[in-house]
Amino acid sequence: MDLLTHYPALQTLGVVYLILVLKMVAVGSYTSMIRIRRGHYATAEDYALQGLTPPAGPDDDIERARRAHRNDLENILPFFGAALFYALTHPSLTMARIYFWGFCLARIVHSVAYLRQLQPHRTIAFTVGLLLMLMMVLSTLLSLL
Amino acid sequence: MDLLTHYPALQTLGVVYLILVLKMVAVGSYTSMIRIRRGHYATAEDYALQGLTPPAGPDDDIERARRAHRNDLENILPFFGAALFYALTHPSLTMARIYFWGFCLARIVHSVAYLRQLQPHRTIAFTVGLLLMLMMVLSTLLSLL
Amino acid sequence: MDLLTHYPALQTLGVVYLILVLKMVAVGSYTSMIRIRRGHYATAEDYALQGLTPPAGPDDDIERARRAHRNDLENILPFFGAALFYALTHPSLTMARIYFWGFCLARIVHSVAYLRQLQPHRTIAFTVGLLLMLMMVLSTLLSLL
Repeated sequence: MDLLTHYPALQTLGVVYLILVLKMVAVGSYTSMIRIRRGHYATAEDYALQGLTPPAGPDDDIERARRAHRNDLENILPFFGAALFYALTHPSLTMARIYFWGFCLARIVHSVAYLRQLQPHRTIAFTVGLLLMLMMVLSTLLSLL
Repeated sequence: MDLLTHYPALQTLGVVYLILVLKMVAVGSYTSMIRIRRGHYATAEDYALQGLTPPAGPDDDIERARRAHRNDLENILPFFGAALFYALTHPSLTMARIYFWGFCLARIVHSVAYLRQLQPHRTIAFTVGLLLMLMMVLSTLLSLL
Repeated sequence: MDLLTHYPALQTLGVVYLILVLKMVAVGSYTSMIRIRRGHYATAEDYALQGLTPPAGPDDDIERARRAHRNDLENILPFFGAALFYALTHPSLTMARIYFWGFCLARIVHSVAYLRQLQPHRTIAFTVGLLLMLMMVLSTLLSLL
């Protein structure tokens, strides 16, 4: 038996989740890129390594990228486990695609809007992703109970 | 073959994990609610959207809710993967229920105690959750090795 | 059917992931240990419980341990889901062991280097872990698509 053919929603989830992992890595790499370009690091040993002196305060763009990244941890990571159980309840493949791709798109828009300081786009994207996750969670709970 | 009937502990984990996802969403929504009520946001573009001026410093209750949320990420998310492997080792369903529901209850008490500033209740709930996770991890490692 | 024998890479992932969970718990416990030893806590209620007065500013070592812990959340947790899908694509067990154990070792070195302020060791360990994850993610995407 092969799990990915027995549970077709699992195959879709794999593609969507791996795209979201690449997206999270992109936000993290974006933070590192600003740090390097501006010579603005997190620790004393990083400044020592570069032969730089620490700046006075935090950098707005670095803090914004870190908040975008943390928001991903708060949403994408809980989504993964919830979607895994959803896929194991033999959902309709159409509904699974709507939840998974909808969430994926919402989180990509969220990151772009966060980093480009676009409001209310960021809040709308966040809310759409959260509502899709909540509907999926409730539907899975109904199947499991 | 159906995984959720073949591995009954997986079915229990699904219910427990989805409840914990809802709990994490509740902590995140609580943070947003205080932000909106007090007009205290994270970014300049949020203040611009609302036509507000940023306050002088951080808000104690918002920072507390953010720490409670981060503590969830540090504990509930690692627990999920560990519990998944535990469920795949065909554990006794009684032990699985003790670990899963015990952890779930401990984390709910932890959040309530954190937000209501109840000490030592918060530390006790944190410790109970962590010990249950560690016992489950060690028991799973013994089965896998 | 037993998943852990049908997917041998899953068995390896279980051992590696549980070791990484113990490593994350170790970083978290290290933070708590410094907090207790120095009487430097996160919230007013913690100081009240201990009968202590809050110090003036943040503690460098506590903030460093917290950043090391957060870096784990940003890397180990996304890795878990990606590795799970990788294991389900029936990879060569040799490649799976290289990815899993290589990532595990890189993340252990990263934590030690972070807490001991060793640079460029920390950055090298971070980069090795990230590259192994990215290669695994791309290889899995190719299998799934």
